[in-house]
This record gives sequence, structure tokens and C-alpha cells, in this order.
Amino acid sequence: MGNSFGQLFRVTTFGESHGPGIGAVIDGCPPRLPLSAEEIQAELARRRPGQSEITTPRVESDTVEILSGVYQGLTLGTPIALLVRNHDHNPKAYEAMRDKFRPSHADFCYQVKYGIRNHEGGGRSSARETIGRVAAGAIAAKILRLGDGTEIRAYVESIQGISMETPPEFPTREAIEANAVRCPDPATAARMIARIEEIRDQGDSVGGVICCRVRSASPGLGEPVFDRLDADLAKAMLSLPASKGFELGSGFAGTLLKGSSHNDAFVVRDGAVHTATNRSGGVQGGISNGEEIYFRVAFKPTATIKLLQRTVDAQGRETSLTGQGRHDPCVLPRAVPIVEAMAALVLLDHRLRDKAQNHTFNF
Amino acid sequence: MGNSFGQLFRVTTFGESHGPGIGAVIDGCPPRLPLSAEEIQAELARRRPGQSEITTPRVESDTVEILSGVYQGLTLGTPIALLVRNHDHNPKAYEAMRDKFRPSHADFCYQVKYGIRNHEGGGRSSARETIGRVAAGAIAAKILRLGDGTEIRAYVESIQGISMETPPEFPTREAIEANAVRCPDPATAARMIARIEEIRDQGDSVGGVICCRVRSASPGLGEPVFDRLDADLAKAMLSLPASKGFELGSGFAGTLLKGSSHNDAFVVRDGAVHTATNRSGGVQGGISNGEEIYFRVAFKPTATIKLLQRTVDAQGRETSLTGQGRHDPCVLPRAVPIVEAMAALVLLDHRLRDKAQNHTFNF
Amino acid sequence: MGNSFGQLFRVTTFGESHGPGIGAVIDGCPPRLPLSAEEIQAELARRRPGQSEITTPRVESDTVEILSGVYQGLTLGTPIALLVRNHDHNPKAYEAMRDKFRPSHADFCYQVKYGIRNHEGGGRSSARETIGRVAAGAIAAKILRLGDGTEIRAYVESIQGISMETPPEFPTREAIEANAVRCPDPATAARMIARIEEIRDQGDSVGGVICCRVRSASPGLGEPVFDRLDADLAKAMLSLPASKGFELGSGFAGTLLKGSSHNDAFVVRDGAVHTATNRSGGVQGGISNGEEIYFRVAFKPTATIKLLQRTVDAQGRETSLTGQGRHDPCVLPRAVPIVEAMAALVLLDHRLRDKAQNHTFNF
Amino acid sequence: MGNSFGQLFRVTTFGESHGPGIGAVIDGCPPRLPLSAEEIQAELARRRPGQSEITTPRVESDTVEILSGVYQGLTLGTPIALLVRNHDHNPKAYEAMRDKFRPSHADFCYQVKYGIRNHEGGGRSSARETIGRVAAGAIAAKILRLGDGTEIRAYVESIQGISMETPPEFPTREAIEANAVRCPDPATAARMIARIEEIRDQGDSVGGVICCRVRSASPGLGEPVFDRLDADLAKAMLSLPASKGFELGSGFAGTLLKGSSHNDAFVVRDGAVHTATNRSGGVQGGISNGEEIYFRVAFKPTATIKLLQRTVDAQGRETSLTGQGRHDPCVLPRAVPIVEAMAALVLLDHRLRDKAQNHTFNF
Repeated sequence: MGNSFGQLFRVTTFGESHGPGIGAVIDGCPPRLPLSAEEIQAELARRRPGQSEITTPRVESDTVEILSGVYQGLTLGTPIALLVRNHDHNPKAYEAMRDKFRPSHADFCYQVKYGIRNHEGGGRSSARETIGRVAAGAIAAKILRLGDGTEIRAYVESIQGISMETPPEFPTREAIEANAVRCPDPATAARMIARIEEIRDQGDSVGGVICCRVRSASPGLGEPVFDRLDADLAKAMLSLPASKGFELGSGFAGTLLKGSSHNDAFVVRDGAVHTATNRSGGVQGGISNGEEIYFRVAFKPTATIKLLQRTVDAQGRETSLTGQGRHDPCVLPRAVPIVEAMAALVLLDHRLRDKAQNHTFNF
Repeated sequence: MGNSFGQLFRVTTFGESHGPGIGAVIDGCPPRLPLSAEEIQAELARRRPGQSEITTPRVESDTVEILSGVYQGLTLGTPIALLVRNHDHNPKAYEAMRDKFRPSHADFCYQVKYGIRNHEGGGRSSARETIGRVAAGAIAAKILRLGDGTEIRAYVESIQGISMETPPEFPTREAIEANAVRCPDPATAARMIARIEEIRDQGDSVGGVICCRVRSASPGLGEPVFDRLDADLAKAMLSLPASKGFELGSGFAGTLLKGSSHNDAFVVRDGAVHTATNRSGGVQGGISNGEEIYFRVAFKPTATIKLLQRTVDAQGRETSLTGQGRHDPCVLPRAVPIVEAMAALVLLDHRLRDKAQNHTFNF
Repeated sequence: MGNSFGQLFRVTTFGESHGPGIGAVIDGCPPRLPLSAEEIQAELARRRPGQSEITTPRVESDTVEILSGVYQGLTLGTPIALLVRNHDHNPKAYEAMRDKFRPSHADFCYQVKYGIRNHEGGGRSSARETIGRVAAGAIAAKILRLGDGTEIRAYVESIQGISMETPPEFPTREAIEANAVRCPDPATAARMIARIEEIRDQGDSVGGVICCRVRSASPGLGEPVFDRLDADLAKAMLSLPASKGFELGSGFAGTLLKGSSHNDAFVVRDGAVHTATNRSGGVQGGISNGEEIYFRVAFKPTATIKLLQRTVDAQGRETSLTGQGRHDPCVLPRAVPIVEAMAALVLLDHRLRDKAQNHTFNF
Repeated sequence: MGNSFGQLFRVTTFGESHGPGIGAVIDGCPPRLPLSAEEIQAELARRRPGQSEITTPRVESDTVEILSGVYQGLTLGTPIALLVRNHDHNPKAYEAMRDKFRPSHADFCYQVKYGIRNHEGGGRSSARETIGRVAAGAIAAKILRLGDGTEIRAYVESIQGISMETPPEFPTREAIEANAVRCPDPATAARMIARIEEIRDQGDSVGGVICCRVRSASPGLGEPVFDRLDADLAKAMLSLPASKGFELGSGFAGTLLKGSSHNDAFVVRDGAVHTATNRSGGVQGGISNGEEIYFRVAFKPTATIKLLQRTVDAQGRETSLTGQGRHDPCVLPRAVPIVEAMAALVLLDHRLRDKAQNHTFNF
């Protein structure tokens, strides 16, 4: 249970990191959408290992195959099944993980919960699982772009203490992709990369914060009282491996302000109602108000490090462990497309839900 | 859509702040649980308006009636419907809200989404809706307490800049209830209350952070990959009015650490596997590991203030507005039982889901 | 669990026959629909006990109150909660049911499943539960009527061996309501009524078949492969108390034909594609094709009879039982509005689902 | 939407008959179940085309691959993805279907609903889709067998007018598999086979009724009021291609009896409560009572026939069509394992739901 996301654009992911394959099934994709494996592949390339010096050197081709739901280049309205075969399997690299629980990984909890686990590479808890999310998110993002002109941009805002100022302009995809850390400010990016390399060379790891901004989302998205847009975004982001926090708009910093400084006054701009400021982050009462939606996600330092750590083995004896295998010293650069994918899944699902309830009948 | 929460212990809330009543229907409550209206009433008293000098002076009796699902003091396993009648209705107090959108409230978004709204007192977006949550949460918390010995404690950790150190001990309910602001540290509480009173007298409002801690939750709770325990807690908390952020364990501050400082080493204590530290916040890989679960929720300053604000009316003309009615200068004290209620709903739902999949058959 | 129906127009019912009340919460009703308690009351009058000589003489006023979701005569898009208080409670009438399981009732199964039951009047398994369905169905039917011109007509087709020929014309509501048994053919109705009265006077009971026909349903309703329109209609009908069978179109009789006689040829009529015959019952491949939808539901003889029957008591001893209380000798006349209500719930839910997936974007 | 079935043992199927592949993802399978592809393959062999003279002569190997969720022969508790590649693809055989709607097929409805369809072999509406159901059902049936000793036996009860008496004994799998038509009575089977061959040689097709019986199902399965066991069985069966009716226990024939003849008296047998008769079909009030569960499903004559039929083309012009390709003259023999699979999915899902709500806590 728990492997599906969304109500109307519903994604189910499957696969362990070292089983036969990883994938997703999407139920509810609108029909007649032009769709090719190449488009999905382009997004997968952004989360692929081995894409730069500061990500894991593992090389995985991660080639996606569309198994169903597309005919002659158009979606059918039937489930779209996507499959990426696993390769580059070196079981010996994970031999130590069979008996020892890696600190701050999911190993121990999976063992406790299920009484069994595929210890190779983290199995189901591996970040490889997000391949299915990125593939599905690529489709959702395309629908939002074609249908509403919605653009979703995530980028790395801080790495450990190194932080950028929120740029005044909505960043371009090109600016984000221009460097290995996916921070649209080149100077900050250079400092971040230097830090990551330094930490990596120590055998250690580092975390940070990703900011995600959404322009031209339809107003009216969000289904109070439980399925608020911000609530579903929070769930989506906390469902990502290594994420520890979420804030929308002013977030935690907003708790330092008084109401008179925090409230977003309504104003008329170009004949339309807008807010003068946007501390709400584009969502009020759980519903998008047409302003830019923005939120931040905290990612902890990668749990796998090459330094010696204390731990316990499957027999309950204290022991120690040194991280094996090839891992990212910092997950954030590769998490950027994953955050975007999850945002797209939330937004499209709410777009369809809003359509269903509100645009149906004229009484 | 969006008014139900949970898969197996499923709560549906209904009601507008100034309609006939507010309530909830709970589907999936285990049978044979002793349950009385009085127990639920006791929790409602904690979120009730008018309970202290720093909450709204509105007086609402908020008397709950059990309409179904309980027979001779025991639950039947059938839906439990709960109803609280609305009183103290002064429509004139909300006359100004008919035509003017209150800044940073849900008014504008409801109007855009539904093309209609009950403007009196916020209607469905009023915090009165949380009555149903608190009532349902009281039942969930009782089941967790009787079944697993689980204890859930939320308290106010900071108000604006005034913050307490995380207490070394798990706070008692008595310590939390000992003062009007629900901060278990008396000295900090006194400073918080003074600040709230000062801000209230300015006609302004203030926000802060609530911390919630859970002891003796069953290990193994959480359904990766999407319905992780932390993801569902995040959704639950962001579904609350005025909340803007969530963090579990080390949260945003954890992004400043290196992996070697952040990881929680496994150790053996009293013959059982534990973690030496708990930056994970009791959840690893989306599953509870048996350690204390703790998380924080950011609440923005109350949107309703008595100061003049710019806004727009229903005809799209710029205008201004001064807050009417009786409102909390700070939502946090009354949000404490609501945070606990939502935590209980998440934990019990996951407890039942874990039962269903994992303890069923011995192969 | 199991007390909600529908995905997008989602109804949750609650209440035991002799608890404080019975009701429903509807989540997903489109906003701005004109709605009054009187309209709902009119449908409840059709399922009310005591409406004729051949139904139970119990008198229940069954007055519905709208608790939420409607403001100044229009729906808000928020949950609509409906409540009917229980009256006419005579606990002594049910004393014998405390210890003895009534044959072919749900008593034994509720006791086995939940380890507890409200034995008075059947508790949750009482047909009074259908009040919530009828109330919700009245709203769904109105939306379908206003939005698409859809008309739903159920009527009694056979009582025991007494059967009507399927009328060539779509029956009017007036023809169905013209007699106590709700059979639109007056001669057959008279024979049915005589049979029911004869059986009633014997202290026995009788069953039969209800036919339901739907005109002007939107084509394209149904979500293969599992949520086919016919599959969801079947579930809806088998969820009714006392129902034992469902068939769509040619149904069981169609198994006697060869394919060449059974297939519905496509033809052009008035410039549109139609089928020459309609053995499919308006649904092909699980999707409505625009022809009349029709199906039949089998209802067993009422389980409560006034004759002596063998049974077992709560201590597992064999004993005997004579039916007490006031019961319908035949459930079908009062089941007619319930069948219509469930059909309306299924059709509207699928209408919204079809809207969501298929009419959203023009690529 | 609509391609998932079940709440806790949740199956999502995907695939078109002539796309790359067909499959299913199962979320919620209990961990540590021994499982191999061979076991699943054995069930697929029973629904495979080309297995006898009276089924389609198409030869499809239908080899299943387990993509995830199983490690070293045991289930992990993670999603189990199953894939069967499509072969034997002859697009020319379906050329005529591109423009002409086959009578009583889903072609027209898919075109109306989605504005697009994969016309080759029926696409998503092809019975090949049931491969995923049979594969998932094989797993569910194994769990029920190992966990509760539950046995599910479906067989062909009638073909057109040729019918068997219900056998007094619960049929063995061997007796059912002993002949090509899967009727456990050899003499009736021989007559059925002769009829099917005769009809096949006419280029026509024939339907019939499958009976399914379940022994040793756990009592207490079913979640009133909507998710009754019989309601979910009805939905499951009406979700099958070509099915037109469902009846549980006495079904439509039961409507001819009086209550005094129809009721199942409770008796004590071997120290346990049983019913003297079983017209209820093992389900009362929507909950299993421990007696044998039995129901019947009506299947219409195969829509594809080799005779000339009137139809309409995609341009809305009347035309005619002669069935092409290789099809079953009667779907029932191959539908037997599909009915069993769906029954297993319903029963296991309810088993887990019952576990979740009712066996959790001792208060």
C-alpha cells in the first residue's frame, strides 16, 4: 500500500533498485496528448546518475519504454505503463548491507515493518524509485504547459550554509541547467560546487534547500479542507527520499512577522485582482489565487558516507560500517527534476479535480 | 471533494461557521471501544473560543452530540457521526465581508473557485471546521493510548521571536495546560503571553511554531513510497488553517550539518535496537523506527487584524477594510489540540494500514 | 469502512435505525445548484413507511434537515450534510432480537464480524439506512436532469410470478406513482397488490424484480476496465438490502441467444449513430452508448415474517422465533425510489469522472 | 481512471491487446509469501488462447515476468509488477476495424468517449486485458488458500439452453479441467462442446452461465453498507468483458418464493452455528456467514461472428462487416479462471479490510 499518488491523474510506481526494473503506471491521462518516449527520456536524463562531477559516478542508461496507453504518438486515455530496466548491478558492493543497518537509511525500518527486505542498493527505498515519478511528472508537466501555460521551475537555493538570494526574476530552465548544482546564480553555484567537492573528498555529505516556483497555474486549484493545494504539495515533497521539511510562501520566517506586515493586500493590476505582496506563496485557504506559487523543501545530508559509523547488525549486535558503492555527496542537484515532477503531479491532479466539480454544469 | 482524511480510519468533516452545524463522520472505527460524548467534549473544550484572555472572547458552547455508531457506551464498528450546533450567530458582524475580500483569508479563492461563498465568518474556511477534526482525533488518540500506550503532546514552542529550548523531558499534559499559551515552560509562557497581549492591544496579530512529540508509537508505521508517515503528517499539518510550514526531526536546520554529524548511529540499549541520536525525528525511509516522533508546524500571524488594510471588493474595485468581529490575536494556543488531533488521525490510520498488510498471515 | 460511495460525487451515510438519527454527507456536489430541503423531502416521502396498505404501518415523519453546504438556497461546493432524526422508537418490540438471530437477516453476521450489534430494528443493517441514499440521490438526479436532461425511471416489473410485459413506452413518473405497488401497468399492478395482500394476511412475505430505465444519459459514461458503468450499477444495486441479482440489457435471458441474434447492429437514425436493437442495455464495453440504459434487480422475499421459524440464540442454542414489529410484506414498492437514487449516484459520479479526464484540454 | 481494483490488495492493470505488453501492478501484497513466476504462469495457461478445439486458434505464449516486489522467491511487501509481452501481432487482420464499428463491441463507445482508440484487436477493451487480472488473482488465491484454506471453484453451468444440475458435491479442480468446456459433469460437458462446435461451424457464437463456489472463506467478510461482499462480487463480475448479469444464492429464481420458503433457518451442527439451507449464498447483510458462497455470472454470446452484419463506419455511413481474425465461439471456458481470479481479489481485499478494522485492538 502507499505506492499510488493522485486521485484523477493517478501514478503508481513500482520497482526495487536492483530488481529487474523500475516503472510507473499512470491512470487518468487525458486522451489525444502527443507523447513520445523521447520526451520522457529527456527528463530522466536530468535525474540520471553520472551526469556531472558532483553526482554519483554510477552510469545508468535508464532507457524508458512505453508499454501501453500510447498509439501512433497519441495517448489513448488508457493506462500508460512505463518501464526502465535496471543495469549496472554489482551485488557484491552491497554485501555488507545484508547484515548491517546503514545509519539514517530505511534498512532497519523496512526490516521491522516487513520482516524482509531487498538489501541491495536500498531496494524499494532507493532513490531509483523516483525514476517513475520523473517519468510521470514529465507527462503531467507537458499537459499543464500545453493546457494552461503553466511553468514549473525548481532550483537549488542553498547548500549547507551557502545560500542565494531569491532572484527577482522567474529563472529560465537554461539558467538552472547551466551548472552542475542547478542553482541559477552562477556565482553562488560555483561556491556550492566547491563545497560539495570539498565534502565529497572528505568522504562526507551535505544537504540543502530546493526552492520551487510555479507561474501561470490556474487559480482555484486545491480542495479544502484536507486536500488543500499546499497540503498535497507538502505531502508530495515529504514523500521524497531525504526530505525533512516543507514551507510555502513566508513559511517559518513568516512566524516572526506581525499580521499587519504579513498580510497580502489585494490590489487591482492590469484590470485584474492581484496581491500587492505574495507572502501567501500563491495559495490562500488551500486554494491557488493566481499569483506565483513558491515553496521550499529541506533535504538532509546524504545518509551514505565513506566514513566509519557505529551501527547494529541483523542479530542485534553493535558493529560498525563504512559506506560502500557510489553515491551522491549531495542529493540536491538530481532532486531538482524530482521536485518539479512531484509539483506537476499535484498541480495536474488538482486541475482535473477542479474541472470535475466546478466546470460541469450551468444551472 | 477533499473533505475526507485517512484510508482506514476515515474522517469526513462538514459544516460552515455560520450554518446550522459543524461535524464529522468517522468510518472505520474499531468496534467495542468505550466511548462517550463527554470524552470528546473534553478535547473540544481545549480548542473552544473564549477559554482565556489571549483567545477570542467569542463564547461558544460547542456541545457535541453522537448521532450514530455508539450503542450503550460502546462503538459498533459502524460510522460515528458527530454534530456540534452553531450558536452565537451575529450576521451583522460579517456584513462588510460580503463584498470585500479580507487580505490573506480564503474569501477571494473560494469566490474564484466556486463562484459563491458563505461570507459569514469565513464559512467553510473558518477554523470552526476543525471542531470535527478535534472530535475525531479524540477518538483516534484514545485508541492509540489504549492499544499501544501512545502519547501525543503538542505545545507552543515559539511566538514570534520568543522561543523555548526543547525541553529534555517529554512534557506532561498538565505542564502544557498550566498556562493560557500552552507552552510547558512557565517562564517562556509568561513572556509569550505578554507579547500576545501587547500585539492584541495594537489590534495586530502574531504567529509562531508548535512542536508535537509522540512517544510509544508502534514501529513500522508508514506506507512508502507516497504514503510515508512523515508525508502524511506533513499533509495533515499543512491542511490546518494558517499553517505555512512543516519539518520533521532536524528539519531545515539539519541542512546545515554534514552527513557524519547528522546520521543517527544505531546502538543497543536495554537489549533493543535504538538510535544514539534522533535527528531523523523517529521516521526513517518514511517508516517509524520506534524512537520519539517529533515535528514542528509554522503558523502565520492571524489574518484578521483590527487595523485598516487595502483590499478589493467583489466588483473588482480597490477599497479598504478594518477587521470586525472577535478573533484570536494568535491562533497557536487553540491550535495545540488540533495539531494533536491530526497527529492522532495520521498515526491511527497508519496503524490500521500496517495491521492490514503485515500481520495477517503466517506463511 | 465501506460507508462511502462514489469517487467525485461521494456520499457517506451514517446511522442506525434506532439511534439518534440517520443521514448522509455528500462531498463533491457542484456549487450554485438551487437546492431546498423540500425537494429532498419529496423523494423521502416515496420511500417512507406507512404510505399505503401494502407497506409497513409504521409511521415515521422522516423530516430532513440540511446541516451544511447550502447557503441562501444554493449549494456552496462544500459538503452537504443531511440529517433525519429517528422517532417512533419502541425498544420493547425488539426485545426478542437481543438474543435470537433472525433467519436471513444480518444479525448473526454483524455479531460475528464486530462482536457487538445494535439489535434494535436491525441497527445499521436496517433499510432505514437507505434514507441517506435517497436524499443524496435526489440531489444527483436533479443535477443530471438540469445538466443533461437525464430521466431515471424505476418500477416494479414482477412480484413473485406476476409479471408485466416491458412497456413499449418509457413510463411516466405519474404512471408509476399511480398505484401502491409502483407498477406502471394498472392491470398488473392490481394483481400484484392482491397477491401482496394475500401473502401479508398469511403472515408471509414476497419478492420480485424492479426494472430501471434511463433516458438521455450522456454517452461516454463508464471508466473501464474495472469501473465500467454496468459494474458500478451492479455494485450499487447489490449494495441494497434484500437484493440478490442484477442484469443489464438482455441479461441472463441473453445467454440463450446466438451472437447473430444478440448483437445490436449500428444504424443511422436522424443523422446520428444508434443501434437497431438494444440488447446491450445502453452500455457496451462498460461505457454508455447513448441508447436507453436499462437493468433489472432481484429482491428476495422480506426476511421478517410473522410465522414461527427455527433459529439459534446468542448462546448457540437452537430455539424458535416469531417476527415482531411492523414490517413490509414486500420491499419492492418502497425500493423503487432507492433504486432510482442509486442509479442517479452512479450516473452522476461517472459524469463527473468523464468530465475530468476527457473534456479538459484541447491539445 | 478506473483501472484499479481493491482497497488494500489493490490491482492496477495496463495494456492494449496489440501494444507492447499487458500487465498488472499489485500494491498491498503481504510480505514473505513464497512466489514464483511459474505459479502465475500455470493460471495464465488456463486462460490462454489456443488451448483446445473450442477456443480461438490464436497461439500466444503469454509468458509472465515478475518485474518487482519479489526477492529470492519471497514477496517484499512492495508493489509486484507483472508483464506479459504481446506477440502474434497481425495488424492486417484488423484493418477493417479501423473504420467500422463492430456491433456489440466497445469500439464505438471508446471512440465517443476518448476521441481515439487503438482499433487493433480491441485495444484496451480486448479480453487480453484480463491477463493482468488472472495473474493478480493467482497471488490472491494462494494467500487465501495458505492463510484460510479457502478454495474457489468456478465452472460452466450452462451453454445456451444446455445446463447441468448443480452438483451436490463441491467440484474438484480436476473434474473442472477434465474437459475443454470446464463443466464438471462429463455428460453435460460433451453436449456443451458439441453445441459450441456446431455454432462455431456456422460462424456464429454462443453464451452461457458460469457458477462460482467458495468454500472455507472466513466469516465476517464484507463492509456494509456499500462495500458489501456481494456488491463487490457483483462489480467484479460485471467488470468482465461480455458479462451481463450476476446473482448470488437464490438470485432471480428466489423472487418466486415466499419468505417462509426462502429464509435460511439457523441450526447447530457439530457445535457451530450454521444455516439449514443456503439460499442466501453464504452472504447475509453483505457479510459472509461461513457457509459456502456461490454466485452465477451470465455471459452473452461472443460479439465477433463470421457472419455479415450491418454497422456504421467512422464517417457515420451505414455499411456492413464480416468478423475477421481468430475468436472464441464461446468465451465461457476461458472465462472460468478469470471469474475465479476476480473472486479471489474480492475475497482477499475484504479479508485484509476486516483484519484492519476488527482484529486490531483489545479494549
